Amino acid sequence: MIDVCLLGTGGMMPLPYRYLTSLLLRYNGSSMMIDCGEGTQMALRRAEFSPNPIDVICFTHYHGDHISGLPGLLLTMGNADRTEPLTLIGPKGLERVVSMLRVVAPELPFPIVFQEFSGDSADFEMKGYKIHAFRVQHNVTCYGYTVSVDRLGKFDVERAKAANVPLKLWNRLQHGETVESDGMVFTPDMVMGEARKGLKVLYATDTRPVPAIIDNGKGTDLMVLEGMYGDDEKLEHVKDHKHMLMSEAAKLAKEADTAELWLTHFSPAEARPKDYEEKIQQIFPATVIPKDGHTTELNFSEE
Amino acid sequence: MIDVCLLGTGGMMPLPYRYLTSLLLRYNGSSMMIDCGEGTQMALRRAEFSPNPIDVICFTHYHGDHISGLPGLLLTMGNADRTEPLTLIGPKGLERVVSMLRVVAPELPFPIVFQEFSGDSADFEMKGYKIHAFRVQHNVTCYGYTVSVDRLGKFDVERAKAANVPLKLWNRLQHGETVESDGMVFTPDMVMGEARKGLKVLYATDTRPVPAIIDNGKGTDLMVLEGMYGDDEKLEHVKDHKHMLMSEAAKLAKEADTAELWLTHFSPAEARPKDYEEKIQQIFPATVIPKDGHTTELNFSEE
Repeated sequence: MIDVCLLGTGGMMPLPYRYLTSLLLRYNGSSMMIDCGEGTQMALRRAEFSPNPIDVICFTHYHGDHISGLPGLLLTMGNADRTEPLTLIGPKGLERVVSMLRVVAPELPFPIVFQEFSGDSADFEMKGYKIHAFRVQHNVTCYGYTVSVDRLGKFDVERAKAANVPLKLWNRLQHGETVESDGMVFTPDMVMGEARKGLKVLYATDTRPVPAIIDNGKGTDLMVLEGMYGDDEKLEHVKDHKHMLMSEAAKLAKEADTAELWLTHFSPAEARPKDYEEKIQQIFPATVIPKDGHTTELNFSEE
Repeated sequence: MIDVCLLGTGGMMPLPYRYLTSLLLRYNGSSMMIDCGEGTQMALRRAEFSPNPIDVICFTHYHGDHISGLPGLLLTMGNADRTEPLTLIGPKGLERVVSMLRVVAPELPFPIVFQEFSGDSADFEMKGYKIHAFRVQHNVTCYGYTVSVDRLGKFDVERAKAANVPLKLWNRLQHGETVESDGMVFTPDMVMGEARKGLKVLYATDTRPVPAIIDNGKGTDLMVLEGMYGDDEKLEHVKDHKHMLMSEAAKLAKEADTAELWLTHFSPAEARPKDYEEKIQQIFPATVIPKDGHTTELNFSEE
């Protein structure tokens, strides 16, 4: 299972009661974060998560409201005597931007690993997370992300017997080991059935609606999408600034046929985003207009 | 009068219920701020102040918890279409540090004026504020500040008569104008009595106790000093890290004979700093251990 927490739901500037948009995923003892604006370390603490298990932070783009909380978070990690490396993933320019922001955090007791990318998409795999970045459309280069975790097939007794795998090796093979025994090599696929459906989450903000969001949203258990305004009269405004309405996001979720949609990155001018929930659910029923700290546990399906 | 608001009281890292230490002063339609760590724009908003009237921001030093909120605040000022210049005052390196942090806020619709200084002390005057920076003792170059506003003398009829100032000029001279009339130059000092006592506030954090804090604290209406820990057993720890105990700050306030002391920059480990108030008041009775947003109105004395 993956625990997903939307640490904040704000766009543009942090507000006293609304942190900036940032997503935290927790799986198998390792956490990953997407976006880290000013105040995200406060949001993390309010949600009662430690920064220590965070192994990866992905960035959609380098506007202040998506990255300016990084130096403070790095300092806090350093003050907690972290020594494990931290991987940062983001579009081209990442190392330059982070190096400049680190003028206030020049010395850290842990290494930072930079993974920059460009082009239409990029893939990374870390700590069981399969991370796929895909280009979206903002007024600067910006990417959405999907994060997937795979699920192995079930142990298949018939298959193991058919492959003449000695009984004593079954357990180790089932747990993913490759084993050499009596001059023969045995691999996990000899005892395991087909991989089962894993879990997949999509996150895209600061973008106009683009087909890549639908394509990447197919088969997702959750899509987290920007819904800057609830009022459709803001369409020209969001077109100009390359943002997205709640209703536009809901249409993408419907097209992608995701299991659930969370809206986020609300304009500071939207005092009560939740007031639009019923209206947006008429487009896509499984829409949630969450508050900061909204959390779910995504579980592998039965069987 | 000056309005003084301690926007936050935290040190090291912002907490969900404790913003980082920052002082806001408001006088005669112009605001000035000292220090601007991560989340300070949220603290400003929670205290219901607008960033627009801020004309000056002073920095004590460039550790993240004192400056990393600047890029976000600049962006917010820019989003509000500010065009008035903003003056930044701080120790040598200011322009370099700010330029690097501005990697996420490269374009702003208003100019920034940098006032860097070095040495033991420096003086600035802006919008009626007399700003005096004085060197303190931290593990990097760090300064405290006093901010003073002057108060004119009262109009002195006898003096005006003695100087043969024509009656028709009295009002203009009283309001600070220099006037030429009938080939003679008349200046305000010809009609005004001696300057009366003004107002003075001292702010010093991230420092060991040093005599300069006492010297500059003399005659102040308020001293705002770091009190990182309430427990005196932390003495060796604060000596090592060049910070200050609450009890040390109170002794400085007593020596300086200030009217009131506010403690700030509490360690995140101090869950309830106010618990120490009674103990510290035994050293200096006019001590307040404030919460975020603590405010006072300093008024010119009667007469």
